[in-house]
Parts: sequence; C-alpha cells; structure tokens
Amino acid sequence: MAEPSISTECKPGVGQESAGKGGERIVRTAPEGGPLVDVMGGAARWQINVHDHGFVALIDAMPRLIPAGTTADSAIVQAARVSYGAGTKKVSEDRGLTRYLLRHRHTTPFEMVEFKFHCAMPIFVARQWIRHRTANVNEYSGRYSVMTDRFYRPSAENVRKQSTVNRQGGEEPIDLSTAREFLDYLDACEANYKTYLSLSERGVARELARVGLPQNIYTEWYWKCDLHNILRFLSLRMDAHAQQEIQDYARAMHDLIAPIVPVTMEAFKDYEMDSVRLTRLEIEALRAGKATIETDNKREQAEWEAKRKRLGFGS
Amino acid sequence: MAEPSISTECKPGVGQESAGKGGERIVRTAPEGGPLVDVMGGAARWQINVHDHGFVALIDAMPRLIPAGTTADSAIVQAARVSYGAGTKKVSEDRGLTRYLLRHRHTTPFEMVEFKFHCAMPIFVARQWIRHRTANVNEYSGRYSVMTDRFYRPSAENVRKQSTVNRQGGEEPIDLSTAREFLDYLDACEANYKTYLSLSERGVARELARVGLPQNIYTEWYWKCDLHNILRFLSLRMDAHAQQEIQDYARAMHDLIAPIVPVTMEAFKDYEMDSVRLTRLEIEALRAGKATIETDNKREQAEWEAKRKRLGFGS
Amino acid sequence: MAEPSISTECKPGVGQESAGKGGERIVRTAPEGGPLVDVMGGAARWQINVHDHGFVALIDAMPRLIPAGTTADSAIVQAARVSYGAGTKKVSEDRGLTRYLLRHRHTTPFEMVEFKFHCAMPIFVARQWIRHRTANVNEYSGRYSVMTDRFYRPSAENVRKQSTVNRQGGEEPIDLSTAREFLDYLDACEANYKTYLSLSERGVARELARVGLPQNIYTEWYWKCDLHNILRFLSLRMDAHAQQEIQDYARAMHDLIAPIVPVTMEAFKDYEMDSVRLTRLEIEALRAGKATIETDNKREQAEWEAKRKRLGFGS
Amino acid sequence: MAEPSISTECKPGVGQESAGKGGERIVRTAPEGGPLVDVMGGAARWQINVHDHGFVALIDAMPRLIPAGTTADSAIVQAARVSYGAGTKKVSEDRGLTRYLLRHRHTTPFEMVEFKFHCAMPIFVARQWIRHRTANVNEYSGRYSVMTDRFYRPSAENVRKQSTVNRQGGEEPIDLSTAREFLDYLDACEANYKTYLSLSERGVARELARVGLPQNIYTEWYWKCDLHNILRFLSLRMDAHAQQEIQDYARAMHDLIAPIVPVTMEAFKDYEMDSVRLTRLEIEALRAGKATIETDNKREQAEWEAKRKRLGFGS
Repeated sequence: MAEPSISTECKPGVGQESAGKGGERIVRTAPEGGPLVDVMGGAARWQINVHDHGFVALIDAMPRLIPAGTTADSAIVQAARVSYGAGTKKVSEDRGLTRYLLRHRHTTPFEMVEFKFHCAMPIFVARQWIRHRTANVNEYSGRYSVMTDRFYRPSAENVRKQSTVNRQGGEEPIDLSTAREFLDYLDACEANYKTYLSLSERGVARELARVGLPQNIYTEWYWKCDLHNILRFLSLRMDAHAQQEIQDYARAMHDLIAPIVPVTMEAFKDYEMDSVRLTRLEIEALRAGKATIETDNKREQAEWEAKRKRLGFGS
Repeated sequence: MAEPSISTECKPGVGQESAGKGGERIVRTAPEGGPLVDVMGGAARWQINVHDHGFVALIDAMPRLIPAGTTADSAIVQAARVSYGAGTKKVSEDRGLTRYLLRHRHTTPFEMVEFKFHCAMPIFVARQWIRHRTANVNEYSGRYSVMTDRFYRPSAENVRKQSTVNRQGGEEPIDLSTAREFLDYLDACEANYKTYLSLSERGVARELARVGLPQNIYTEWYWKCDLHNILRFLSLRMDAHAQQEIQDYARAMHDLIAPIVPVTMEAFKDYEMDSVRLTRLEIEALRAGKATIETDNKREQAEWEAKRKRLGFGS
Repeated sequence: MAEPSISTECKPGVGQESAGKGGERIVRTAPEGGPLVDVMGGAARWQINVHDHGFVALIDAMPRLIPAGTTADSAIVQAARVSYGAGTKKVSEDRGLTRYLLRHRHTTPFEMVEFKFHCAMPIFVARQWIRHRTANVNEYSGRYSVMTDRFYRPSAENVRKQSTVNRQGGEEPIDLSTAREFLDYLDACEANYKTYLSLSERGVARELARVGLPQNIYTEWYWKCDLHNILRFLSLRMDAHAQQEIQDYARAMHDLIAPIVPVTMEAFKDYEMDSVRLTRLEIEALRAGKATIETDNKREQAEWEAKRKRLGFGS
Repeated sequence: MAEPSISTECKPGVGQESAGKGGERIVRTAPEGGPLVDVMGGAARWQINVHDHGFVALIDAMPRLIPAGTTADSAIVQAARVSYGAGTKKVSEDRGLTRYLLRHRHTTPFEMVEFKFHCAMPIFVARQWIRHRTANVNEYSGRYSVMTDRFYRPSAENVRKQSTVNRQGGEEPIDLSTAREFLDYLDACEANYKTYLSLSERGVARELARVGLPQNIYTEWYWKCDLHNILRFLSLRMDAHAQQEIQDYARAMHDLIAPIVPVTMEAFKDYEMDSVRLTRLEIEALRAGKATIETDNKREQAEWEAKRKRLGFGS
C-alpha cells in the first residue's frame, strides 16, 4: 500500500497580525539561509503499530522546522554553544560536539529537543511507562468515557515462562498446552466486558463499573517528553530486563525519533546501549589479570564473567 | 482495644564513631534547649485503615525529632527565616509566619517537611495517585511476586450512579438490584484469580499471568513526598470532584499528618480548602451589584450562582 | 523601521527518506484540512528588548505548525479531549473547554504546549528566574568564555527606595542625589571589569577571574518550558511583589506568547491574574456582613480591607 | 578542642494526644526490637567548614530514627523489598541487595532516604549548585536582608591557571605575582561593600543596592534532597571537571552522609565513582586487541588511551 502523499507547503500562520497589546514591541527575524523545512515532512502523524491494537505515533517535535540540510540535532548543538559565547571559534563539528556531550553526560542540551506522542497500550504497560515522571501526560479517562472492547493477547508462542534466574519473565515460551490455557483465562477475564457495558448503560458510575476490567485492556494517552528523558526511558525500557511488551513500545519510539535526531541516536547506541560499565572490582581484576573479582557475591561474580566474554577475554 | 504501648526512649545511634575518612572534620552541636522529642511519639507506624483491605500508614517524617513544646511546623519557619538573615528581628510569631507563607503562595518552605507512607490500595486508585509526579515511590511488583487475593468491594449502598451533571461518578447510590448485579460482576471478575494462581504455579511468567486480573485488586507501595506537594495532592483528591475512593485515602493521609503539622493544616483549611476564588467576571458582577456575569457560558454562570450562595448573597 | 520580511514557504524536510532500520514500519498521515501553517509566521525569532542590554526572544514553539484558522491553543484541547473518548459528543466549543480547564485547575493539558526562549538578563535576575525548576536551561558559561562588558543600569528615576511596608523594594524612586550616588557606585563596581579582562588574558582561570564581577553583569541562556509552568512563572513574576526588573522580563515573555495562545492568555487573565481568593475568614465576614475578620493578625486584616475595596464594598 | 557532649535521650513528643478530628482512627505500632536510635546521635547539627567562611551542615535525615544495630541504608532495603512481597524469602543480605540496586540502576529505593543541609557558599558556587533541580531550597534573600561582609578568597597558591586542554580551570597554580594581582582585584571589588552598606542605610532598595556586589560574596540556604539525587550531585560535582570550589563542597557533603548510609556510599564508590564506562568503539578495539578505536575524533582517541592506562593495558 502506498504511503499517503503529504503536502509540505507551509503558509503564513496566525500570530503576526494578532499580537495585540504589547505585540508592537516584537521584532521578527527571518531564518538565515532560506526557508525552514518540516522535520516531519509535512505529515501530521508518524505511526508504528505495536501488537494487536497498540501503537506509538509521533505527532509533534521541537524543533519542528529546521534549516534545510540539517537535522533536529542542531537544536542540541545550538544550546550547547551558548556556553562558548560569541568570541569562541567553532572548535568542533556539530556531530563531534553532540557525541562529546552525550559521552560526557552533559545532558541539559538534549533537554532542548521535545517530542510528543499519541500512544495506545494495555494498562499493565501504561503502569510501567507512567513511572517516568519527567513527562507530560493526558490519558483517556474511564471515569468520563466507556472503555473500548480491546484487549492485549500475546500469540501462543509468546506466552513466556517465569525465569528461574532473575525472577522476571524470561524469553522462553511455555509449553503450548499451558499457553492455550492462559489464552482461555484471558478469554474468561475479557468476557466480563459485556456486563461492564450493560452496567454502564444502566447507570452504574463508569468509574466503578470499570474496576472489574482486566489490566490487559487498552488505554491511550498523549505523552510529551524531552529527548534527554526519552533516552533514559529507552535505556531502561529497551533493556532485556524490561517486560517484553514495553520493550516493543520503546523500540517503536526509538524508530520514530531516529530519523529526526540521527546523530544523537547513533551516539546513544555507541555510548549507552552498547557500552559496558566496569566496576572498581572489575578494573582491579583486569589490572591484575585475574578472572575473578574480590567478592563473595555470586551474582556479581557472574556479571563479571558475562562482561569478560563481552570484552573478548577468557574462553 | 488498647493502643500498643510505645516506648519513646532514644538511644545514641550510629554515626558518631563510624565517621571514617573525612569524618574527623565533622563538628557536632547539641540541640538548644534540651533533648529532642519524636513527632511520632516513639512509634514506628501510625495507620488508618481504608475500606476493606486498604490503609495509609505514616512511617516516617522529617523533621522526626523536634524541640519539646514545638511542632514539626517549626521546620517551615526555620527555612523561611533564612530569608530574613541574622540582623532582622523576629517580627512575627511562628504561627503568623506559617499562615502568611501559605496565604501568599510562598510554597518553598513547605517543601522542607517530608512524610513517608506505606499504603495499600486498589490499582484503579493507584493509577490516579501516581499522577502526582513529585513523589518518591516503590510499588509491589506483580512481575516478581504473586499478587495477593484481595479485591476492593464497595458495600451495596456505595455503588454509585453515573452523574448526569458532570459525567463523573456522583454521590447518589444506584438502585439496590443493580448494585447487587454490580457486585456479582465483581465476583465473576475476581473468580479468575484461581486460574491466575494456578497458571503462575505452573510456570507462566507472573508478568503475563497477572494481566487478566481486574483493576480492583490491591497493590501496595511506599510513597514519600514533601508537604507542599502533599497539600496539592490533598487539595485535588479531597475535592468533591475526585473519585470517592481516592477521597477516602486522601482524608486518611490528612488525618495522619494533621497532628504533626497542626498549624499548617489549619492554614490549609482556612486559605485553601475552605476558600473561594472569584474571577475577573465575578468581581465585576459583585462591584456592579449584578446577579449574573458577562458570559454566555452556562456552566460558568452556574458556578457563579453557587459561589454567590456560598458568600451569602442572593436568596 | 519596517519589520523584516519573512518567507513562510516550507519545504519537505529530512526524515522521510532517512528513516533507516525500523523506519519502514512508519505510516505517515497528512494533516486533515490542508497544509499546516507556522505559528511564528515563518520567522526564526520574535524578540522583545528589555532594559539596556536584555531581551526575551521566542525561538520555538510546540505546536509550531497548526491547521490554518486555528491557534496553538488547539493542542491543549486536543490533549484534554483524549479523556472524553471517541463516543462522546463534542459538548463544548474549544474556547469554552480551554477556559473551563484553566478555571478548574485541570493543568495537565496546558503542559502539552511548549515554548523555547533565548534570553539575556543580569545575573541577579537570572538567580530569581532559575528557581523555577520545571524548565530546561542552557546558560552561557563564565568558565569557558570571557564575560562580555555589559551591565544593567537603571535610569536615575528608576532607582527605588526600600519599602517600609513589606521590606522589599517599593515603587517609589529615591531622591535624585542618592540615585546618582548609586549609579556612581555601579560605575565603581563595573570598573573592575578591565582588570578581569587583563587577568583572563594573562592566564588566570576564567572561572576564578569572573568571581569579582558584580551581579548586574549580563548573562544569557536558552530556556524551554511548558505552558502550565510558564503561567505559574508569569503569575509569580508579573506580580507586584516581584522585583521590578524580573517583572519586566515576565511581561515580555507574556507579550511574546499571547498572540500564539490567545485563548489561554485571556483565560489566565480572567481566572488567575485578575482574580481574588477569599479565605474562610473572609467568607464568614462577608456572610455576616462584617467589615472585619476574626483574627488579631493586623496584616491579614489589612489584606481583607484591600480586597473589600477591590470587590466594591465599604467606602 | 573537645566536641560538644550531646545528649541522646528522646522524650515522648507531640502528636499522640493532639490528633484531633479523625485522629481517633489512628493505630500506633511500636518499633520491633526495642527503641529506635538517632542516626545523628542526638545532635542538632553536623558541620564541616569549607574554605574561609563556607560550610555544609547536615541538619536532618530521613530516616532519623532507626533500629539499633542498623544504618539508614535499611530504609533503601525496606522500600526495595516491597517488590518482593510477603511470601518471598529474603534471598540476599541487606548489603548485597543495596549494592545490587545501585549496580543495576534501580534508583528509586535510594529516593526513600532524604537529607537536609544548611550551607553557606559564594554566589558563583550557589549558581552551579542550584542547577540540580530535584531539591528543595530556601535561600537568604538580599531583597529582604542586608548581605553580610563575607567574600571568598582563595589563597595565593590556589589561584589557578586557565587550562589549555579543556578550556576550564585546571589544577595548576598561576605564577605568584599574577596571583597577587588577582587577590588585589578581589580587594578592589569587595571595597564597594562599604558603599553598598551606606546606600542601603540611606534607603536605596536592598534588591537594587546589592547588584553591584561581586559574585564571591557569601550567601546561605537550606537544601534538602533525596539520596539518589545527592549521588547524582556528588558524581558530577566531585568530578575533576567541576570547578575546584564546588568540589570542596561536594566532598564535605559526601563526608557528612557517609557515616549515615555507609553501605550505599561504599557501593557508590565501587560502581560509580571508581568505575569506567567502555563505549561500543572501545569494546570493539579491546576484542580486536587494538590500541586505537575506529574514529578520527582525536579527543575520543585520547580518552580511550587514558582508559587503557587505567585498565592496565599498554605501556
């Protein structure tokens, strides 16, 4: 199917005539180097579907308009450069500077970029997501509106076993017979939706009627966050220890912003996602050429063993 | 039943001997005016039960130890006084200053007081509560642990009708027959718990198994917040527009801290909870001696009518 | 002087071709109702100068592109409407809804609008401004760069007397002779700039050299904040109790965003700036038809007297 | 000089009798295992002096009272354990769990500990410090009160050269003659204090009079922050790239809390302060046994060289 054709023409907007009281003081400056271009290419929405009924849709970005030939990464560099002042020569290329900032935890310039998303996800995913506090959120309200009949169902192959190692859900699927029993259980839970609807229609307060609905029912929200805190979100939620379902949402978010801030996302991969932190104990072991670290903590020892493999040491 | 007898003796703690490297630089000063007293009276926990299985329990406060004869409100005054410096005379009594600060939105001194709670509440309440972002939270995890078989059930008289006025849950109970049907519906939703347990025991990842459980299942958390943001929480959640269930939790929180910061909570009542804000339109109506405001918005007109009654005008 | 002519043509930007890995999943949707328009009318910068060397310049907004015929207020309404869901009819006009949200402290939809500013101000103003924590900031660094020779100087008529009422700076000017002495004092303080520059050039660390510079030297920063928190900033800093100098900056900020979110700013005036809050004590006095409130606090009594006048009561 | 002798007796406080309306619902529970002890050993203040007139003083902690034989680290473990639920066996020792949490960026339990400080520092230090937004602050106000005649002066040996490497202040002292000139310059800047005082006394608004005072004048504040964000503060401000002066304050803060949360601070050293992060490029170089990484960025190459030495590779 062809993508919708998107017009990118940009007409003069409101504002300039309607300034009103005080507005006469405003001096407007045109962009240097010609008209600006839309980072979303004139689209209103970039959407990636997740699972059966979920999605992450980018609906706005700051900067939205940028000089032709640049990326939105330029807003990071612009903010960072204020530290260097007018008289200082441009020592590093933009790419080098962006990478330097990320590598050295100069996080504030990344807060100068903002993204807004419209998302739909099951409530159990929303509950993990909302723990990221530095974000702006408006969620669908089951107090005002009737919840829609949409529930998350993994495929039978995606019903996972409890991990015995880390007491979380692992990646291994459970046997098919138990998986089917699990899906039947979801059916039974969701079957109560009909009664929910009927009770709502007969006047039971929606805020009460909904409390029997299972946590795999879908909700939706607008979610707006700066890039620094989005990176933090991605770092925690694309991690293998996060629940598989939220990983899928995090990856969709990643893929939506990667074309808009490509330099940042490459640096994020190099310095955060694919990096390894060595502890004091591990550094000492490395320096001493030892395969074990000075601890009687088995888990920490095992972590070191895994890192050693990652770094190409040992068998 | 008698309250547990609480010892309030306070022994020398850790710290002073174990300072270690750098610790020798520390100069310690005894409190003026004799030993400090515990705002919690030597208790580890002050608990108020809410509904069938919920509770709000105060488990710590800052300040915890205060000069005898004072209240924890003194920490607010202490912080506010730093603005006035050494040379300035103590112009106002502590009570007057605390009330002045609250009346005039000098909110930062109230951030100098902190409370920590242990709470249990249904998930649909937790979802509203967590929207208060300026708080520290650690919640029970259904990924690691099996959820307990506890669900919120209102009594039949507390099953409320949907309000036709504000599209929220009202205060009016629904007819008893529908209420009983609602409780049967909760029974049906909760009946799936048995399958949840069985699937968990047979190895289905807990993070998946739980997603069929209804939103009236109880969760619990530690919740820590400063007093300014607690007041904001109370102001929004003790309000008549909040869902009845979270109002009950907010009131429990209020009652737990009221004896510890009594001056603040009295000012909060006088200047926030029992106050009325008049808009520009309403002020103009008042000045002109008119019963109606200059708007064609019916809801706003109705709000003004309600305020006029509250202020003793009109019939 | 004519305003610069601004091109508003908007070309296709980056993004749509460079999606890369994962990008092929993205579905793009064109805006309904034709191409979007720029709320800044194609400009890169809207600036209002403040005092001698200061300025507040709007350099970006979210939403930046909006449907023709709307204002950026529409982003507030869009987020608020998610609560009402698909099945609910659009009960109120956008303007009515925006006003309702502000009047009833439904603050989260206002967080969906974001503004970015480039500002220059003296350090003593910056120190008050930075206390608003929910903002993203990148400031010029005197550690990396040489501070520029620009200092804030009020005109002689703007050198104010200490207020005897509220122990802040009042609005009354001091006698001209003392005002001139004050300006001479500033001259003396600023005269050390030459030595600062010379020491910097001779290798003294800039981070040390600058510490002798007075607090009226100008700094600059990028400052990004959501609309809800901007309203809070304006409410506190346009207030008569704020220092005159930061009031001037707040007013410039107000005038820059007013044409972009005109509905919100009108509601802000009606429900916040020009509103009056009546306390429990004042409501009781009103109801009882009394001119005095039940308190022995003189300041509170005086506040009530002022409000009574404002409301058109009393002589 | 002997440290002041500190009484640690702890009397019953307010609260338990004065609960008032709603208070009768409160159920109080005594601590298990006997009376609690004060983490500050009965003191009101633990102070470390910094430079000539500065100080960091710990004035409160949460938890303040803990079971005898434990440390305040126990509050971290308490919060983390809520995730594991009642039925789960205590798999790890407290120390192991605390270390695990820090190693794996489970940061929220560290937010359950709170510290409050009273500090005095020069304004240029305060300006760096205040950038840490997740803290509660009340600062001395030069609008209300006269600024005190106290200025920061490094010793001649501590007047540092501008670094040519990173364009920040280095550690190398400048020649003594220039250092003396710098101190003379500070003298000249501070000499204006007399005029400031005189103008203030003659009625110039304090908020204006102060603007000529240099940035090395001391201010003071109350500063309250949770442990997670304090660790972030320490990590950035004890770093060699931070300005020397704020490093000294950060170290004082570190030394004040180390005896109270010793397990956390040891883990912080092992996993954060003394750790090394290897980037994707560096890991690839390590695996390939190469001394150089795949980049043409000289600074990044140099960073790798430094890390290699740290890890015991190379010459």
